[in-house]
Amino acid sequence: MNSPKTPTTPQKRTGGRSARVRDAVVAAAVDELTHKGIDQFSISSVARAADVHETSIYRRWGSRQGLVAEALHAAHATATPIPDTGSLIADLQQVLISVRDLMQSPMGRAFTMLAVSMQPGQEFYETLKGMWRHRLAALESIFAKAVERGEWDGAIAARPRIDALFGAVNWRVSMTKDDATDAYIAEMVALYCRDGLLIPAAAPAQAKVARRRAA
Amino acid sequence: MNSPKTPTTPQKRTGGRSARVRDAVVAAAVDELTHKGIDQFSISSVARAADVHETSIYRRWGSRQGLVAEALHAAHATATPIPDTGSLIADLQQVLISVRDLMQSPMGRAFTMLAVSMQPGQEFYETLKGMWRHRLAALESIFAKAVERGEWDGAIAARPRIDALFGAVNWRVSMTKDDATDAYIAEMVALYCRDGLLIPAAAPAQAKVARRRAA
Repeated sequence: MNSPKTPTTPQKRTGGRSARVRDAVVAAAVDELTHKGIDQFSISSVARAADVHETSIYRRWGSRQGLVAEALHAAHATATPIPDTGSLIADLQQVLISVRDLMQSPMGRAFTMLAVSMQPGQEFYETLKGMWRHRLAALESIFAKAVERGEWDGAIAARPRIDALFGAVNWRVSMTKDDATDAYIAEMVALYCRDGLLIPAAAPAQAKVARRRAA
Repeated sequence: MNSPKTPTTPQKRTGGRSARVRDAVVAAAVDELTHKGIDQFSISSVARAADVHETSIYRRWGSRQGLVAEALHAAHATATPIPDTGSLIADLQQVLISVRDLMQSPMGRAFTMLAVSMQPGQEFYETLKGMWRHRLAALESIFAKAVERGEWDGAIAARPRIDALFGAVNWRVSMTKDDATDAYIAEMVALYCRDGLLIPAAAPAQAKVARRRAA
């Protein structure tokens, strides 16, 4: 949803020139993170690539942290959107497939390297934790919606399921280099969610997932 | 078990000088991987650090791949030994705690970066996959022993449990930066193994685990 130009509140996503500048800078920042990593991440290089003045970047984002945070958020939100298919099982399958695809891409590998190298006290540590708090809340909302639909037992915590499923896919792709096929993902979701399902899973929406991937 | 010197079969682990040279070279190789990463991994630098001739390294290990493979194997085997406590639950808790501790160390982070950066066709890709095949077989042996004891339902595959548990710990430590405490690990093991346990888990061997960590 684009709102009209609001040049006095440049942090908001706005339409028109302000939005184009933001999008160009965020895209350049994602590109910089992907190809150079966090240690070489440079505002001046991002400014050159996006064809804006460095001062505009500092005015809008305040610091390297602010820009890296928005770039990570934006890249995750675009690459791994939170689905809302009306079925817990289909939602989880769909988001896990997008996570697997992201992790197998140069951008996903760069984000993983960035996360792995990060330690408490370092420049971007709190930025990264903040991004994950936001992402995990979004993933937990998949379960919350299923509780509202009477599909998932609200007494069962979502987080251990999220850890097991996203952890398994992440571990196979990043570490052991075993396939995490769509079928593997479907099996894991069924296995680790069956004990909390109040309504048996509908048809696993394979067709929908397949169409999404082909798109 | 040290065997007598067998200089004609230098690939074997042998006692005496040959073993000392091997240990020094492997330790230097692990150190090189930890501090410089795989791209800068240099046999000549390892040779200098271990105070041996480069030619001795090539004679024994053949190539960078051979030495990196042995260094990764040796480091994992030392840092995360496969337990055999007589209880599936206690074995899993113990090895997961050691994996968490490894992953939080500079060496563990270096190994993770190495794995994440690796792609099919690259120099060390098959080496890495081979190491993981070996590790996964060792982890599956924990379940196989439990089947022999009548503790675990042999009809239930071990691999999805391993993926969920090791994936969850790996993901929290590497990515989300949430704690993977001993209590968290105990909860996850109980949650994701309860449906295959034929004999209810004994006391979760917390004291043993705690002693191990303090040692």
